[in-house]
Amino acid sequence: HAHEVLDHGFVRVVDYMGDDAAICQAARVSYGRGTKSVQNDEGLIRYLMRHWHSTPFEMCEIKLHVKLPVFVARQWIRHRTANVNEYSGRYSILDREFYIPSAEHLAAQSVVNNQGRGEALTGEEAARVLDWLKADSTRAYDHYEAMISQDGQQGLARELARMNLPANIYTQWYWKVDLHNLFHFLRLRADAHAQYEIRVYAEAICEIVKDWVPAAYAAFEDYRLGSVQLSGKGV
Amino acid sequence: HAHEVLDHGFVRVVDYMGDDAAICQAARVSYGRGTKSVQNDEGLIRYLMRHWHSTPFEMCEIKLHVKLPVFVARQWIRHRTANVNEYSGRYSILDREFYIPSAEHLAAQSVVNNQGRGEALTGEEAARVLDWLKADSTRAYDHYEAMISQDGQQGLARELARMNLPANIYTQWYWKVDLHNLFHFLRLRADAHAQYEIRVYAEAICEIVKDWVPAAYAAFEDYRLGSVQLSGKGV
Amino acid sequence: HAHEVLDHGFVRVVDYMGDDAAICQAARVSYGRGTKSVQNDEGLIRYLMRHWHSTPFEMCEIKLHVKLPVFVARQWIRHRTANVNEYSGRYSILDREFYIPSAEHLAAQSVVNNQGRGEALTGEEAARVLDWLKADSTRAYDHYEAMISQDGQQGLARELARMNLPANIYTQWYWKVDLHNLFHFLRLRADAHAQYEIRVYAEAICEIVKDWVPAAYAAFEDYRLGSVQLSGKGV
Amino acid sequence: HAHEVLDHGFVRVVDYMGDDAAICQAARVSYGRGTKSVQNDEGLIRYLMRHWHSTPFEMCEIKLHVKLPVFVARQWIRHRTANVNEYSGRYSILDREFYIPSAEHLAAQSVVNNQGRGEALTGEEAARVLDWLKADSTRAYDHYEAMISQDGQQGLARELARMNLPANIYTQWYWKVDLHNLFHFLRLRADAHAQYEIRVYAEAICEIVKDWVPAAYAAFEDYRLGSVQLSGKGV
Ligand SMILES: Cc1cc2nc3c(=O)[nH]c(=O)nc-3n(C[C@H](O)[C@H](O)[C@H](O)COP(=O)(O)OP(=O)(O)OC[C@H]3O[C@@H](n4cnc5c(N)ncnc54)[C@H](O)[C@@H]3O)c2cc1C
Ligand SMILES: Cc1cc2nc3c(=O)[nH]c(=O)nc-3n(C[C@H](O)[C@H](O)[C@H](O)COP(=O)(O)OP(=O)(O)OC[C@H]3O[C@@H](n4cnc5c(N)ncnc54)[C@H](O)[C@@H]3O)c2cc1C
Ligand SMILES: Cc1cc2nc3c(=O)[nH]c(=O)nc-3n(C[C@H](O)[C@H](O)[C@H](O)COP(=O)(O)OP(=O)(O)OC[C@H]3O[C@@H](n4cnc5c(N)ncnc54)[C@H](O)[C@@H]3O)c2cc1C
Ligand SMILES: Cc1cc2nc3c(=O)[nH]c(=O)nc-3n(C[C@H](O)[C@H](O)[C@H](O)COP(=O)(O)OP(=O)(O)OC[C@H]3O[C@@H](n4cnc5c(N)ncnc54)[C@H](O)[C@@H]3O)c2cc1C
Repeated sequence: HAHEVLDHGFVRVVDYMGDDAAICQAARVSYGRGTKSVQNDEGLIRYLMRHWHSTPFEMCEIKLHVKLPVFVARQWIRHRTANVNEYSGRYSILDREFYIPSAEHLAAQSVVNNQGRGEALTGEEAARVLDWLKADSTRAYDHYEAMISQDGQQGLARELARMNLPANIYTQWYWKVDLHNLFHFLRLRADAHAQYEIRVYAEAICEIVKDWVPAAYAAFEDYRLGSVQLSGKGV
Repeated sequence: HAHEVLDHGFVRVVDYMGDDAAICQAARVSYGRGTKSVQNDEGLIRYLMRHWHSTPFEMCEIKLHVKLPVFVARQWIRHRTANVNEYSGRYSILDREFYIPSAEHLAAQSVVNNQGRGEALTGEEAARVLDWLKADSTRAYDHYEAMISQDGQQGLARELARMNLPANIYTQWYWKVDLHNLFHFLRLRADAHAQYEIRVYAEAICEIVKDWVPAAYAAFEDYRLGSVQLSGKGV
Repeated sequence: HAHEVLDHGFVRVVDYMGDDAAICQAARVSYGRGTKSVQNDEGLIRYLMRHWHSTPFEMCEIKLHVKLPVFVARQWIRHRTANVNEYSGRYSILDREFYIPSAEHLAAQSVVNNQGRGEALTGEEAARVLDWLKADSTRAYDHYEAMISQDGQQGLARELARMNLPANIYTQWYWKVDLHNLFHFLRLRADAHAQYEIRVYAEAICEIVKDWVPAAYAAFEDYRLGSVQLSGKGV
Repeated sequence: HAHEVLDHGFVRVVDYMGDDAAICQAARVSYGRGTKSVQNDEGLIRYLMRHWHSTPFEMCEIKLHVKLPVFVARQWIRHRTANVNEYSGRYSILDREFYIPSAEHLAAQSVVNNQGRGEALTGEEAARVLDWLKADSTRAYDHYEAMISQDGQQGLARELARMNLPANIYTQWYWKVDLHNLFHFLRLRADAHAQYEIRVYAEAICEIVKDWVPAAYAAFEDYRLGSVQLSGKGV
């Protein structure tokens, strides 16, 4: 089944390879006869995570089908250690689906720092913003449709017409990645510094990973998500 | 100086490392004493290109500053073997600059195949399309500005407001890549199947590369751009 | 089951993800509604291969367990787009197993070019070479064992003792790679320019891939292995 | 000039691109108008390092010429995010140069853990080990030379003959890498868990990097090399 995210998005597992045992199997090839000391899988996985022995985690792979707004896709695609096939706006006609933030996520610019969000907008200001987002999306899509229509006219090339569409339109892709690089993605995107709209995808994936490789996820949560790093000077 | 591309874009060389001689220097480490047969640099470079000995070309590196529409950036970023720093729409306010195709590039959808362009639009249809593209960009940007304004209101977070902006808005980035992977990029994006708007960037970069590493570029042009591949069955 | 290669080596499939249908599934996300023209999977796969649309092939993944001589491993590991866990000579004691070429593969240096092999050695010369290879391996391993022994002595660190072992000793690893990059590996290593000892591994993997993704393998064979490339000037 | 490492090895800078200022230049594209808060380059670099904003560090690139024993090269090459051209033992004849540990680095296997070294060997045991290492190297090389000789015989192919050579023989390569991935390499290989023989190379490179990008190196030293990481449970 698909995990629903935002107003029209989702994350859905298509396939995966490997599990906690596969991580240990690979790690034990490396350690060979010398693994007697770390007896159980969970202990071995925690040891690997703690010492940044990342290659055994690359032995697991997952493939997801994701539907997401374009501005989220633009952040996501920056993670280069993955395999991607995206819906093509050159060949195909995009669907009329736009992300419109819910009231509580219509956040103001933070006044404390440049990069974050403050309180949710309220009252008239919130209403005005929502109206614009909706009206501009609708109009942009109406024109998109009208431009590509071949009804009584030539019809603009799809690859050109899509440039009129705003960044809150939804796209889709298949996204395949190994577990080590997925953890790296999750550390950066399930983090408080990440934009809310990508963070909810990362959080949905955290749930998926927790089910898939519980021991690895627990180690990740402890040593990466929840960890504190002290600088040499700080120590 | 910057090479101008499209209506507001450019490609500008920031820095580079290596040249034709650096390719040969690296290749000769591999060949060692055995390189007497291939005497001159040009011949050696052609030999490497012909036999897909790609690693010596990785010994050259170039860094570009590029200004480009977002829908072009979305295609470009799919090339993962590069280093990128893009202008941030979370921290910063985007400029009011949009790509509006010139008359001769306002192409119709091809009727022969799904993926390409046909003739340029003409007459009223062309005028209507241009009006829409301009009006929608302008209105979207007006609303963007109005939404983030902190004048007498809270002001929507920049990271949210930008979702209202269409894909023809310009962005900028630093893009660094090695010569082998740049050739791979150019083969795919200076090709007739690539969308016109990214192809003009690829062509501008071809000019840059031709100046930078003339022998390597000549070999690339001959064995990649201009080459014909016959299938086994076809032979 | 394991595919035997050379005198003590093997290639064994541990796991895989995806198949011919998975390639098409991903490709059709990209093509969207526009795929009616390419009806069947085989045709679509041939189309993708012919046009260097490589990302759908990245949607398949395979994990192999390989046992191979160190000098083969040194060539193999140069393919960076894979995930690897190798048996550790720091933690573990290596086995006494060495590659000794069979008579017909004890080839002379080519007299025509610097990089290849000529006829097999014969007579006394062949016998002498085999004697040396065997005797030196045996002696090196005897000393390795004697050096690390902790019987009545401190015992040299394993990570140091192994430096005495020649490059024909066997090692093992788990090796995981996507299908696109595996094809790239096979094109370079199942090729006549590759050293015989790695070529036989590539050939064993070709058999595995043919069983796994028959349509993709057929397209690869036709458009990569069997193809002929003509330079622009040659055309 | 070359930095000498071990008995016959070295690290030599061939070329580099970028410096501390280039890191900041790229980072400021991303931050845009929002960088007023972090005023000076050093502060900005420390901020980037602390928050794992790694892509600006990828904007610097260095190319090294390295001479190193094969068993060190086997560890080094596992770092895939680099460009490499190695001296070819297929085309060329390898030199008669072997790493022989100095007395104080002829370490015993650790008795506390499986992966490390203990005290240096002493007395007769040390002498015996050194004798074996030297004698086996010499004999292996004598046979290598005799096998490839074409004096009155066919001469074994170089690509085969080299399999007789032990892992302490020296090889050479050009190695090019960006600063972010170089820091990753240095964190793993200048670390106490790394084998002494690769650690001395990492330390030589640390000196080079300190000269090249002093602010970035200082931040790296403080936040990576010297840092302490506490698990969530530990906090
Ligand atoms: C005409 C055209 C139409 C296209 N249409 C679509 C479309 O409809 N949908 C779509 O999604 N894309 C489409 N693309 C994009 C295409 O699928 C590639 O993403 C893009 O061309 C980058 O190519 P690349 O992967 O070879 O380059 P790079 O990412 O630079 O990779 C170069 C090589 O490095 C290796 N590599 C790099 N990173 C990885 C990694 N993480 N894992 C494994 N190997 C790696 C691979 O060997 C790869 O071939 C299209 C491209 C073109 C040119
Ligand atoms: C909160 C936040 C704010 C951000 N703000 C900005 C911004 O303003 N501007 C901006 O441009 N980006 C921004 N980013 C994106 C960021 O710079 C990275 O591009 C993104 O997080 C992907 O991280 P990565 O490079 O570590 O991941 P991946 O691309 O998955 O790479 C993982 C690792 O693989 C290696 N690697 C993979 N590909 C290559 C390659 N081609 N060359 C060398 N090494 C490679 C590197 O070691 C890398 O660390 C932001 C990210 C976050 C989380
Ligand atoms: C003390 C020590 C002991 C070790 N013992 C062993 C051992 O017993 N057995 C063994 O096999 N290895 C061993 N290694 C090697 C180790 O497993 C790594 O291969 C090596 O340290 C390189 O690290 P890396 O993968 O992070 O670096 P790089 O290969 O440079 O990669 C950097 C980052 O880029 C990304 N990346 C690059 N290429 C790919 C790719 N193809 N696919 C996905 N992501 C990619 C990943 O995010 C990766 O973390 C040991 C290393 C150390 C330091
Ligand atoms: C017949 C033959 C002779 C050879 N002789 C020599 C020799 O004498 N000396 C020598 O050093 N090597 C030699 N090689 C090895 C060769 O140079 C390559 O290292 C090896 O073939 C791997 O190829 P690759 O780089 O295309 O594969 P991969 O490493 O799997 O890379 C595939 C593609 O991914 C991208 N990519 C992956 N990692 C990176 C990265 N870190 N940076 C940028 N792009 C990346 C590139 O686009 C690359 O083409 C030889 C190989 C063959 C087949």
